[in-house]
Amino acid sequence: MNTIGTLFRLTTFGESHGPALGSIIDGCPAGIPLERELIQTALDRRRPGQSALVTARAEPDQVEILSGVFEGKTLGTPIAAIVRNTNQRSGDYEKLKSEDRPGHADAVWRERFKHRDHRGGGRTSGRETLCRVIGGAVAEAYLAQAFPGVRTVAWVSQVGNLVSAIPEPGLTRAMVDAHPTRCPDPVAREEMSKRILAAKEAGDSLGGCIDIRVDGLPVGLGEPIFGKMKALFALALGSVGAVTGVVWGPPDLLARIEQPGSVFHSQKDTYGGIQGGLANGEPVALRVFFKPPATLADHAKGGRHDPCIMPRAVPVLESMVSLVLADLVLQLNARPHSA
Amino acid sequence: MNTIGTLFRLTTFGESHGPALGSIIDGCPAGIPLERELIQTALDRRRPGQSALVTARAEPDQVEILSGVFEGKTLGTPIAAIVRNTNQRSGDYEKLKSEDRPGHADAVWRERFKHRDHRGGGRTSGRETLCRVIGGAVAEAYLAQAFPGVRTVAWVSQVGNLVSAIPEPGLTRAMVDAHPTRCPDPVAREEMSKRILAAKEAGDSLGGCIDIRVDGLPVGLGEPIFGKMKALFALALGSVGAVTGVVWGPPDLLARIEQPGSVFHSQKDTYGGIQGGLANGEPVALRVFFKPPATLADHAKGGRHDPCIMPRAVPVLESMVSLVLADLVLQLNARPHSA
Amino acid sequence: MNTIGTLFRLTTFGESHGPALGSIIDGCPAGIPLERELIQTALDRRRPGQSALVTARAEPDQVEILSGVFEGKTLGTPIAAIVRNTNQRSGDYEKLKSEDRPGHADAVWRERFKHRDHRGGGRTSGRETLCRVIGGAVAEAYLAQAFPGVRTVAWVSQVGNLVSAIPEPGLTRAMVDAHPTRCPDPVAREEMSKRILAAKEAGDSLGGCIDIRVDGLPVGLGEPIFGKMKALFALALGSVGAVTGVVWGPPDLLARIEQPGSVFHSQKDTYGGIQGGLANGEPVALRVFFKPPATLADHAKGGRHDPCIMPRAVPVLESMVSLVLADLVLQLNARPHSA
Amino acid sequence: MNTIGTLFRLTTFGESHGPALGSIIDGCPAGIPLERELIQTALDRRRPGQSALVTARAEPDQVEILSGVFEGKTLGTPIAAIVRNTNQRSGDYEKLKSEDRPGHADAVWRERFKHRDHRGGGRTSGRETLCRVIGGAVAEAYLAQAFPGVRTVAWVSQVGNLVSAIPEPGLTRAMVDAHPTRCPDPVAREEMSKRILAAKEAGDSLGGCIDIRVDGLPVGLGEPIFGKMKALFALALGSVGAVTGVVWGPPDLLARIEQPGSVFHSQKDTYGGIQGGLANGEPVALRVFFKPPATLADHAKGGRHDPCIMPRAVPVLESMVSLVLADLVLQLNARPHSA
Repeated sequence: MNTIGTLFRLTTFGESHGPALGSIIDGCPAGIPLERELIQTALDRRRPGQSALVTARAEPDQVEILSGVFEGKTLGTPIAAIVRNTNQRSGDYEKLKSEDRPGHADAVWRERFKHRDHRGGGRTSGRETLCRVIGGAVAEAYLAQAFPGVRTVAWVSQVGNLVSAIPEPGLTRAMVDAHPTRCPDPVAREEMSKRILAAKEAGDSLGGCIDIRVDGLPVGLGEPIFGKMKALFALALGSVGAVTGVVWGPPDLLARIEQPGSVFHSQKDTYGGIQGGLANGEPVALRVFFKPPATLADHAKGGRHDPCIMPRAVPVLESMVSLVLADLVLQLNARPHSA
Repeated sequence: MNTIGTLFRLTTFGESHGPALGSIIDGCPAGIPLERELIQTALDRRRPGQSALVTARAEPDQVEILSGVFEGKTLGTPIAAIVRNTNQRSGDYEKLKSEDRPGHADAVWRERFKHRDHRGGGRTSGRETLCRVIGGAVAEAYLAQAFPGVRTVAWVSQVGNLVSAIPEPGLTRAMVDAHPTRCPDPVAREEMSKRILAAKEAGDSLGGCIDIRVDGLPVGLGEPIFGKMKALFALALGSVGAVTGVVWGPPDLLARIEQPGSVFHSQKDTYGGIQGGLANGEPVALRVFFKPPATLADHAKGGRHDPCIMPRAVPVLESMVSLVLADLVLQLNARPHSA
Repeated sequence: MNTIGTLFRLTTFGESHGPALGSIIDGCPAGIPLERELIQTALDRRRPGQSALVTARAEPDQVEILSGVFEGKTLGTPIAAIVRNTNQRSGDYEKLKSEDRPGHADAVWRERFKHRDHRGGGRTSGRETLCRVIGGAVAEAYLAQAFPGVRTVAWVSQVGNLVSAIPEPGLTRAMVDAHPTRCPDPVAREEMSKRILAAKEAGDSLGGCIDIRVDGLPVGLGEPIFGKMKALFALALGSVGAVTGVVWGPPDLLARIEQPGSVFHSQKDTYGGIQGGLANGEPVALRVFFKPPATLADHAKGGRHDPCIMPRAVPVLESMVSLVLADLVLQLNARPHSA
Repeated sequence: MNTIGTLFRLTTFGESHGPALGSIIDGCPAGIPLERELIQTALDRRRPGQSALVTARAEPDQVEILSGVFEGKTLGTPIAAIVRNTNQRSGDYEKLKSEDRPGHADAVWRERFKHRDHRGGGRTSGRETLCRVIGGAVAEAYLAQAFPGVRTVAWVSQVGNLVSAIPEPGLTRAMVDAHPTRCPDPVAREEMSKRILAAKEAGDSLGGCIDIRVDGLPVGLGEPIFGKMKALFALALGSVGAVTGVVWGPPDLLARIEQPGSVFHSQKDTYGGIQGGLANGEPVALRVFFKPPATLADHAKGGRHDPCIMPRAVPVLESMVSLVLADLVLQLNARPHSA
């Protein structure tokens, strides 16, 4: 299904080469300040063509709000926002009609749905993630009212086999955005840039890691059993196409699980801020693994692709986290502590 | 919430020291052969007290079916099954009334819900996973009818820093169950045993990995976007308390993501059997990371605990996978290929 | 599906002649006072064998709470409660194995599910409604804390073609329960009794109406569009087997809709307390129509039946209303007025 | 919430005076023929300004499909379709900023959401129903493939206190549409026309009834307990603003429930085609009651309104029925008879 969330719900629609993509955000409370520019700014962080490191596909990706906002504030009704596809160079894609792109889901999708839009990925295109950024922007507008101290920051922590240093506390999005790699490590990012450009030149691609940190969550946020915060993060992050693994915990967690329990549990950040599925008051830490993009064939055919998707994936993952948080905050409201 | 699934739905209930735990399975089609013994056999694989490696808490865990089955076949109505808690030694737990167990979620749970059952973990106890095994047994009964070729096998692949060899294709549950570690590597498992027993002796604990393999899925199984098979696996596996990470792919996937795309995509098993969120016809491969159990404090107080939860977690993870698969099969039925 | 509600969710299970029926209530906040006796008292109002007017099937219907309650208060975890079926006279039903009961859903159910429990209605039996009463009792325990002024009272307002007077404001459940017909009109109820007994004697049955009134709701309760309070009442009440119609408004609403708008809208109670799907501060009024029970064939075969189901349906409808209200209160909490 | 359905899901969005209204239909199988014109034709049946009997608000209501359709067939992805609001005469509504319209939900909506769009009904406007007609058109495109024999026809059966004759079997939408009242009774409809025009002249309004008949459903369609076909119809129809009651059964059902069971059950059409919540093979019959529109105040202020909403509500109710049916067909597919 194309909807995520229980109370704060995002529904996405649109194919990469159809008339438009868009999002419906249902369940956002009324009276939340929300301007078109706020969403546009979020989309601009994900947009192609921002630097030499990413795809040159030059979609302006201008968002239009169709409903749910009036005089700069939410109405409590569904917020619909769309982005028109303007860059439909059909010549690029006509030859794809009769062949599947290697490494893409084209074949399995056609087996399942029979009828598909051969002009690019259609619904499986990474372009669908812009809808998630729209949803994330609204979720963050809500969180800014509900818990102004909440801060979600993601950064590129590994490209290929190159690992960045763990950043200091206090990392901000501005610090991450300061470099096209979205890696805050001043040494590693220069080398990352070189490798990404080399991969682009070679028609190759690179995977890696993004780490995420969330500060300021209220203790107890989350729901038990199948609504555990970590399970919902896994669903939300695992629904992003290029993501191939999720770890709940600090950047070195996979090394730590080799430790005996007596050592493991002696470190207070070891739970990644989540115990029993609920926020425990420590910062939440998540690590997300990416496979290299499957775009080599596109290169051979003159298509445009991202040699490394992670710089552009940073705002997408932040959006998925914010959507989960907004949903859990509404659920916490529903059954507050004092009940 | 305490329910997982869209069409094949499991709801679990029960506290570790209340009268009973149980499961409701809603959405299982009518006419599926299902005997009490089938569920009991599944529960016996998870039961405490099976070997020296696991907790001695000797619950017989006898299941009773309350509804949904008649003359050995499902009725198409909700299947309710319960397990009575018989081992309620209140003396063990009275002293816990006024203190939180270190490494457990007690404090955060009390912050959230105020009123809690201090006699052990209550709803956060690992004992809740028996309800998932009940659900998994029903899911597997259904899958055996719908797609008789589907085989889900999980095994312990790492304990502490000790890594087992990757098993040959053709691994069966019987082969896994042949050793109390549930590791099929004849060399590694002996060493694993020793380490687990040593940890038990020392009041310590060990984490590690379980790998899962699913054969025989129909091509195209899964749903797009937020219903991607990998996202649903992440939700289902991530909802298990001790799980701290999930990777979709073969056992060496985290090494492979350091490869350039040209190498990564040249290996046909690299997608872990899932592309665009849908089964691609290859075996599905998953890797699940476990933190060491937080049971050291229990040891100090004479409580009973598992020094390494993974041998008993194997049937729990298989159950979660089977629940996701049964749900996706029903969704595939709803919108079949030929529509 | 066997679940109703979004945040306050009732799942029911059980066949009329299986081991047990029961309910899971998921989403009830923690800390709500809830004793077994409170649920038992609610069940006793619905129980067969209370008077000469209803079936003699003498099930004691003793409820057992399996989870979710500790030391007299809810834990915020799923509340599971079951009622064992004790009156399984198989002799009564053996002959039903090969034939369908006229007026019952047996034939259509078998067409759909193939495999069914021929011993009575199975899942379509009116006995399933005891699970709703369990759910309603918990919902009312929650409402008593959240909005102590809320009062839901239902009464039998028509039997066959005999219509009772509209009761005065201030009607209580005790006043309704004071007579076995559950009609508060002192004149009409005597005649109703006679007609019901005559129908019973003749192996015949009678339908009619139940009216419901809810006082004390907060203004604005309800959700827009598909979550309108009236739509949710319709779903909840329409899911009761014998119900054949629902009207939102005062007892004479069907006469009023023949009035021109200028007259209709001049009466402030004309909206039945709901405008735009939300509570408007006036008492909520509902009218529910019942068909006569289809139990004539049972009579011929010596079975036991209710000649008029409505006296026993009163607590069932009150329960369905309370379940909807508890769910809407949680949703209102989630997005409070001031947001 | 603004979504209805489990597998075939309609989400609606849009305010009456915002940029656009629209619908997302999620869950429609791939490969279903669907042209823009099919949806446009459905919308034209609901459009204002069709005759002297309805509002003159002259919205062209041109639909644009944004996603989910490619080369005339559905893709199996979400179908998004929007209608721009072109008739935003702000002058009409400026004076409404500081006052509530009598008989409307303005006051209760503002109490709930605080921030609202004062330019007309916003989200509570009847204009929202165009989104349902879009959804219904897609549902009917799907049903035409899945069960080509299904026919849903609704007609105006009562205006004020004027009751039409029950139509013969074989009634078609064309026969209903042949007269602006959408009443097929050649005598009654002339009188209905006169009364509606007189009400319009007087600034008054009229309520009444619409009857619905569905032929050709497969036996067993529907789900048990809370998924009963009649409960889902009640939810779907009860969610339409002006609807004030729903009866499942033939047009004279409310008279029949006064009959003893021996008479009631001797009529095979008495169940309205639904038993145990499932289709029993007989035509499904529904009766829906409407209150007179609350538009008198608009008249006084020069606003435009429908003196009788029912002729335009006919395609809206048909759409709601078709949405329920499409959802139930997918659920039936999921767990087919033979399972």
